[in-house]
Amino acid sequence: AAANGKEILGIGAEIKRLNCAATSVTSQELGRRSDLIVSLGGDGTMLRAMRLADGNRAPVLGVNLGKLGFLAEVDVPGLPEALSAIDRKEFTVEPRMAIDATVGTSELTAFNDVAAVRVPGEGSAVVEVRVAGQLFVSYAADAVIVATPTGSTAYSFSAGGPIMSPSVEALLVTPAAPHSAYNRGVVLSVADPVALELLPSSGRLAIEVDGRVSCYADPGQTIELRSRPGGASVVRLGRTTFYQRARRKLRITDSAEIPLSMIGSVWDD
Amino acid sequence: AAANGKEILGIGAEIKRLNCAATSVTSQELGRRSDLIVSLGGDGTMLRAMRLADGNRAPVLGVNLGKLGFLAEVDVPGLPEALSAIDRKEFTVEPRMAIDATVGTSELTAFNDVAAVRVPGEGSAVVEVRVAGQLFVSYAADAVIVATPTGSTAYSFSAGGPIMSPSVEALLVTPAAPHSAYNRGVVLSVADPVALELLPSSGRLAIEVDGRVSCYADPGQTIELRSRPGGASVVRLGRTTFYQRARRKLRITDSAEIPLSMIGSVWDD
Amino acid sequence: AAANGKEILGIGAEIKRLNCAATSVTSQELGRRSDLIVSLGGDGTMLRAMRLADGNRAPVLGVNLGKLGFLAEVDVPGLPEALSAIDRKEFTVEPRMAIDATVGTSELTAFNDVAAVRVPGEGSAVVEVRVAGQLFVSYAADAVIVATPTGSTAYSFSAGGPIMSPSVEALLVTPAAPHSAYNRGVVLSVADPVALELLPSSGRLAIEVDGRVSCYADPGQTIELRSRPGGASVVRLGRTTFYQRARRKLRITDSAEIPLSMIGSVWDD
Amino acid sequence: AAANGKEILGIGAEIKRLNCAATSVTSQELGRRSDLIVSLGGDGTMLRAMRLADGNRAPVLGVNLGKLGFLAEVDVPGLPEALSAIDRKEFTVEPRMAIDATVGTSELTAFNDVAAVRVPGEGSAVVEVRVAGQLFVSYAADAVIVATPTGSTAYSFSAGGPIMSPSVEALLVTPAAPHSAYNRGVVLSVADPVALELLPSSGRLAIEVDGRVSCYADPGQTIELRSRPGGASVVRLGRTTFYQRARRKLRITDSAEIPLSMIGSVWDD
Repeated sequence: AAANGKEILGIGAEIKRLNCAATSVTSQELGRRSDLIVSLGGDGTMLRAMRLADGNRAPVLGVNLGKLGFLAEVDVPGLPEALSAIDRKEFTVEPRMAIDATVGTSELTAFNDVAAVRVPGEGSAVVEVRVAGQLFVSYAADAVIVATPTGSTAYSFSAGGPIMSPSVEALLVTPAAPHSAYNRGVVLSVADPVALELLPSSGRLAIEVDGRVSCYADPGQTIELRSRPGGASVVRLGRTTFYQRARRKLRITDSAEIPLSMIGSVWDD
Repeated sequence: AAANGKEILGIGAEIKRLNCAATSVTSQELGRRSDLIVSLGGDGTMLRAMRLADGNRAPVLGVNLGKLGFLAEVDVPGLPEALSAIDRKEFTVEPRMAIDATVGTSELTAFNDVAAVRVPGEGSAVVEVRVAGQLFVSYAADAVIVATPTGSTAYSFSAGGPIMSPSVEALLVTPAAPHSAYNRGVVLSVADPVALELLPSSGRLAIEVDGRVSCYADPGQTIELRSRPGGASVVRLGRTTFYQRARRKLRITDSAEIPLSMIGSVWDD
Repeated sequence: AAANGKEILGIGAEIKRLNCAATSVTSQELGRRSDLIVSLGGDGTMLRAMRLADGNRAPVLGVNLGKLGFLAEVDVPGLPEALSAIDRKEFTVEPRMAIDATVGTSELTAFNDVAAVRVPGEGSAVVEVRVAGQLFVSYAADAVIVATPTGSTAYSFSAGGPIMSPSVEALLVTPAAPHSAYNRGVVLSVADPVALELLPSSGRLAIEVDGRVSCYADPGQTIELRSRPGGASVVRLGRTTFYQRARRKLRITDSAEIPLSMIGSVWDD
Repeated sequence: AAANGKEILGIGAEIKRLNCAATSVTSQELGRRSDLIVSLGGDGTMLRAMRLADGNRAPVLGVNLGKLGFLAEVDVPGLPEALSAIDRKEFTVEPRMAIDATVGTSELTAFNDVAAVRVPGEGSAVVEVRVAGQLFVSYAADAVIVATPTGSTAYSFSAGGPIMSPSVEALLVTPAAPHSAYNRGVVLSVADPVALELLPSSGRLAIEVDGRVSCYADPGQTIELRSRPGGASVVRLGRTTFYQRARRKLRITDSAEIPLSMIGSVWDD
């Protein structure tokens, strides 16, 4: 990198942990001074790198250290070639939508999802969903999840939501285990602000941002959510298509391979 | 209307059926010459009126004759006031996405959905879904449905799909009763063309456009689909919000009213 | 009651709370000495009364104090007549299956369900389901729920499970928000013991018995479950059928009332 | 076989088709005179063999000729050893529930399922489900399916139903693509007769028995269904367990292998 006239920056504590040669900076400085942010790790690291990149010009290159990183663009062995391709400008950047949430005095930003989740022993998540100021539906559920297209394959998918192309500008609101016959989610315009109000009968809820507990909310509190297209951007090298990834990562089995006449009992013993 | 300097046009056969005073024109002329298309009937009539309006400047005002029209803006008693409001320019028009489909030599247009549906006795719908030219998934199913946001509350909803705001620009692809553990749909960008290829093991399929059989397709044939935002436009008078309609029309029950501690057995006798 | 030659028993603390005239006994004594256990309250009270009745001969009469008690047989105004009917032997008793669970040194009994539930901040419920000693499936989920037919309308229903007649002898195993395309539950024979093993990657889980946290389990621990048909019995007076209750309580909307041609957009404003 | 003192029987037309040495009999005779019925083919053949065995003492041995037979016990290469094991009495027989259905003057028997299915162009399946003479729910749907435990992995599974152990005595009623928010099935006791009444707004429906159209039913007609445990029996050699088969055949992916923190976007290109 030095030979190339580049300077490598790192966050102090992380440089020590990785024992590598890099100029130590704060995370704010890292975001501001970088031309490219390289995320080495799993998807959690990638989501944190996207939050770091938020509001700055540098795109994020995801380098996968584990075996099942879904957000990463390359594996470690592919890193040198990836950096050369980036040097040669042979890459594109793709915007990724952020969700900004206000819970009391806390301001939170997510790239996958914001979820209001019940805590065992403290009651259900009894939440009113308001869209553009109007009541849409209320759920008593294990959780209510507001997800970006990027997050459509994470918690929202587990709760039964559809997968969504990152090129669609929309938000997904999906209940997890709602206590009623009506259990569908809704796809909302990014122009519509969404609010989750904890009704009086709700328990205290954990507010999870990209899968990590950020804070708790009490009955009577409201979580205000706004989508922000292009909050961060990621580097694409064009080696694989999202269709190949979607198939492999969600382990989509072609049902076409199991014609109906072939489906019988599996309980054969 | 005459007093107002307006001319009322009608399609020949319909004028006879309704026994009303109107200038008889062909359906092409009706679309081209109208400033406003008034649909009197149920949702089927409304969808036909939207196809009539397609490519012309006139928006469609839906007037509901039945008790459960979802696409209509007003009921018959509200029609005079609605027309006065329109005269006073107190209305907005809202675009509605169309789907254009090519099946063999047939060109079809839908405002709700295009579905490839199995015919009992002729085998399953074994269909490969290709997005932007790439295989995404294949389903062996009762049907594969491609829906607009308007159609998200019709057949796609029955098959388990999410409801989608009409202001989102996206297509829904949803399988009905797919023969595999993977049973999710996908939300696609309007920029991506979609193709449904009937695989060799498929039965002959009925191609339903907005719920009506338009033609049949055989194994080996491909249905090409392109979304076209703003294919038609509808008159909005602002009397009710979509949230109120969604709640009433889908009979959404607030699960919040059934706290978990209250849910026990219903089999009490 | 005294006029009738009956003695009324109550649990000490409850008698004080209700300020009523009754002979104070322990809950063990209450179960053993009673001919009829009357549950005054909601479904939580009813489920506790069933645990009290467990192993004793007295059936439970559920008297509903709230507005949405599902397990109760009568409301308060109907109580005198119900007691008269019972005096005249005009009632039947219906068995209700129990689930006995062993978690470490704890022995638990449920009449609705036993659920292993993730605690926000402590990781997913990563649980292997073994049936009759054989691995069946493992889930990474918000929760894994093992329910009786009585409990099929409670948490298991929220998680997507079917409702089940109380006259079926079977157990339901249902995952809540599982992180995979495979999200189905399974209906098991009461003859097959079931075990939930917390895999090493699992978080610490809350073990909820009939909706209340009983204890916690750590990765490596196994929850052994056995169904026990007829653990308790309930009084049936034959006033309503389960079909009427199921319809009313789950607010089942007859979809027949919404023919497909009538389903259009709900987003009409 | 001859060396063993056994006679091989076959149905006339089938013997000709297979060009094998066997005594030609009618299918009635075959059922009555056999000690063992060997089904050579896929699951469709196996289900027909079970109908042939119905009411007779001979169990059915399923021999799989294709690659994905689910009901078969052995593949062709395993047949000699299987027959030897049967000669040595090293096998068990397992009962399989039948469903008897009456549609007009037709009497039908299914071992997987009876389904009332819409025909494209003829309207929805608008069906009232009555259990033990009482209205339970009505659906407007693509189909309403009544399945045995054996059939729980066939059409009922596609429609969203749970899988069910063959040792549970219960019936599954599952709607396919119902037009309402309520889309759950129900697990019924084998003691309760079930009736499907086609309401006036229904289209003419195809009645599929084990996946094949048997007849059609018109609005106003009622399909009466009764379950009959042990209608046929199948040979079990104990080589594999149902858990192994269920996992392999439904391609159950252990979601435990995809921890939540690892689930990110699949749309990475």
